[in-house]
Amino acid sequence: MTAPETPLAPELAVSEWFNTPVPLTLAGLRGRPVFLHSFQLLCPGSVAQALPQVQRIERVFAHTDLQVIGIHTVFEHHAAMSPVTLRAFLHEYRLKSPVGVDKAAEGSDIPVTMQRFGLRGTPSSVLIGRDGTILHEAFGVEDDIAVGARIAMALSAPLARSAAAGGDACADGRCAAPMPPVVEP
Amino acid sequence: MTAPETPLAPELAVSEWFNTPVPLTLAGLRGRPVFLHSFQLLCPGSVAQALPQVQRIERVFAHTDLQVIGIHTVFEHHAAMSPVTLRAFLHEYRLKSPVGVDKAAEGSDIPVTMQRFGLRGTPSSVLIGRDGTILHEAFGVEDDIAVGARIAMALSAPLARSAAAGGDACADGRCAAPMPPVVEP
Amino acid sequence: MTAPETPLAPELAVSEWFNTPVPLTLAGLRGRPVFLHSFQLLCPGSVAQALPQVQRIERVFAHTDLQVIGIHTVFEHHAAMSPVTLRAFLHEYRLKSPVGVDKAAEGSDIPVTMQRFGLRGTPSSVLIGRDGTILHEAFGVEDDIAVGARIAMALSAPLARSAAAGGDACADGRCAAPMPPVVEP
Amino acid sequence: MTAPETPLAPELAVSEWFNTPVPLTLAGLRGRPVFLHSFQLLCPGSVAQALPQVQRIERVFAHTDLQVIGIHTVFEHHAAMSPVTLRAFLHEYRLKSPVGVDKAAEGSDIPVTMQRFGLRGTPSSVLIGRDGTILHEAFGVEDDIAVGARIAMALSAPLARSAAAGGDACADGRCAAPMPPVVEP
Repeated sequence: MTAPETPLAPELAVSEWFNTPVPLTLAGLRGRPVFLHSFQLLCPGSVAQALPQVQRIERVFAHTDLQVIGIHTVFEHHAAMSPVTLRAFLHEYRLKSPVGVDKAAEGSDIPVTMQRFGLRGTPSSVLIGRDGTILHEAFGVEDDIAVGARIAMALSAPLARSAAAGGDACADGRCAAPMPPVVEP
Repeated sequence: MTAPETPLAPELAVSEWFNTPVPLTLAGLRGRPVFLHSFQLLCPGSVAQALPQVQRIERVFAHTDLQVIGIHTVFEHHAAMSPVTLRAFLHEYRLKSPVGVDKAAEGSDIPVTMQRFGLRGTPSSVLIGRDGTILHEAFGVEDDIAVGARIAMALSAPLARSAAAGGDACADGRCAAPMPPVVEP
Repeated sequence: MTAPETPLAPELAVSEWFNTPVPLTLAGLRGRPVFLHSFQLLCPGSVAQALPQVQRIERVFAHTDLQVIGIHTVFEHHAAMSPVTLRAFLHEYRLKSPVGVDKAAEGSDIPVTMQRFGLRGTPSSVLIGRDGTILHEAFGVEDDIAVGARIAMALSAPLARSAAAGGDACADGRCAAPMPPVVEP
Repeated sequence: MTAPETPLAPELAVSEWFNTPVPLTLAGLRGRPVFLHSFQLLCPGSVAQALPQVQRIERVFAHTDLQVIGIHTVFEHHAAMSPVTLRAFLHEYRLKSPVGVDKAAEGSDIPVTMQRFGLRGTPSSVLIGRDGTILHEAFGVEDDIAVGARIAMALSAPLARSAAAGGDACADGRCAAPMPPVVEP
């Protein structure tokens, strides 16, 4: 098999989940588009702008198979943003979709999932296609219209479609091949 | 040929155009999606909410073949919202996309295009597909995310696709047929 | 009489009034503070920011003797912003307080009241004290908290108080003197 | 001396201060107006609306002798809103004015200062006059214009509650009387 042209999203590394009865993996969600958003509960931009947008996304796409996942990527003030505080935060802000605590990394303030995706800070978001490839990444909050348009494109793509923007009908055979399992480090 | 299942958008009736060197017709735009927005320059909802959204739409979809068209559908205070006032309004609010003055109807305060589309008031919007059918109509301003998603779907539809949601593949040849000329009343 | 230390506001020059059964003059309002706001109905800043603030001012100070007066100071697009259009605008935007059409000046696009006050554009506002002096002028919309504070100070000033900020009890006799009549040009 | 007609504000009970080199007491601030605001760092209304208003108040009244004080009145999710989290919160939200941690009460979730003032929840605010009396209390966030007006009135009141700005008067003896010691529960 030749190397894929578009990168597969790396797997999540989560030490504790909220709002989901079972742990989630991107591998297990293959076939559905995923809107992954990275936040910190003491990050003003996350709280004032990104999370309200996430809630609008959930509302508009409630009847689709889009999966929204939050990752609490604490890279500063670690003691101040513990899972105890996160639990109360999710309750007060009425966030209902799954949120995972990004797994702490040894020897680094940057947690594992954040490192794997190369996120630059919070808030960030990653739109992942049905085939597991990264369709779009953003640091900061983007225009609602553009976000809605991108998610609609991800939803309308058939499972076997290439993730390339405007890409037409996935004729390269890559998508038909079984996806290689994602190996945890 | 059987009757189409989804309605073709009626033609525009415009007495004066701004921001376009030539008059526009929906027939002439067949093949491109059209975001048609109806407003009045003294309507607070049009000014505060709808027109800023139109400008966001123009910005996000600037590099696509979406055509944005405004229709000034004056149905009250006719003397107060003349084309002279509209021209200054478009200048002050920096609206750059084509705007047509909806043609006054004999014996009615409701102008012709507004009647044809059955619009209930301002602001309203109509999303028209590549095949000329109406994909969505709204009275009032809708959520940016939903608007972005709908326009993206209209853009991604192939020319020959039926506009009906989940609709059925436009196999009838209707789109290829030359559109009958629209007769002005 | 010696020159006043603080300038008396010049008189209004109005060609047509709305929302008041009788013409208003600043001379006739002596003894009450006046919040004078200058706007144009096609000025985006006036419509989006200044007039909503005026309505908040009216609401908060409804039970005081503050007089709010709008002046429609058209200095461009004169044909587009006629009194006919202004009347419909006031109706649609539900402005209830008195609004005067600034009197056109011979040989200038700048109307008379705007010239007298030296206003630089729209929106502008002038806060006039109980003694008829100008307490504050602004071009553009200022912070609500600061506006509320200034109006409260104007309201709390006794009639005979000098307008100087922090000024103490108007012991100079000027206020007690009968105000000279304001001569129309 | 007869009993005052308006209630003196009760004293603060604070277990830890931020943004001030020395502990503050209302008794020690007698002679200055105080804007006391009560918040919780996980309360959405506090974060989105009240604290931005506090920062606008600080900016507008920076050159006056108004003292702004925040009280972190945690009455739920106590473990989630510890002083460690508060410290990081103040840093991230760039709050520069003094903030005290409301002292935990034995046998109650409601902390001591919150009880003394009878606050109903967060955000709340209390405006205290130069003479130490409560001028206004609010649960929730009030209109900026009204808040600005009330603070201006508090600032313009002389210590003995008649009216010259900056007046130092306080001739009634009441302020000179030693404040009764506030007994901690």
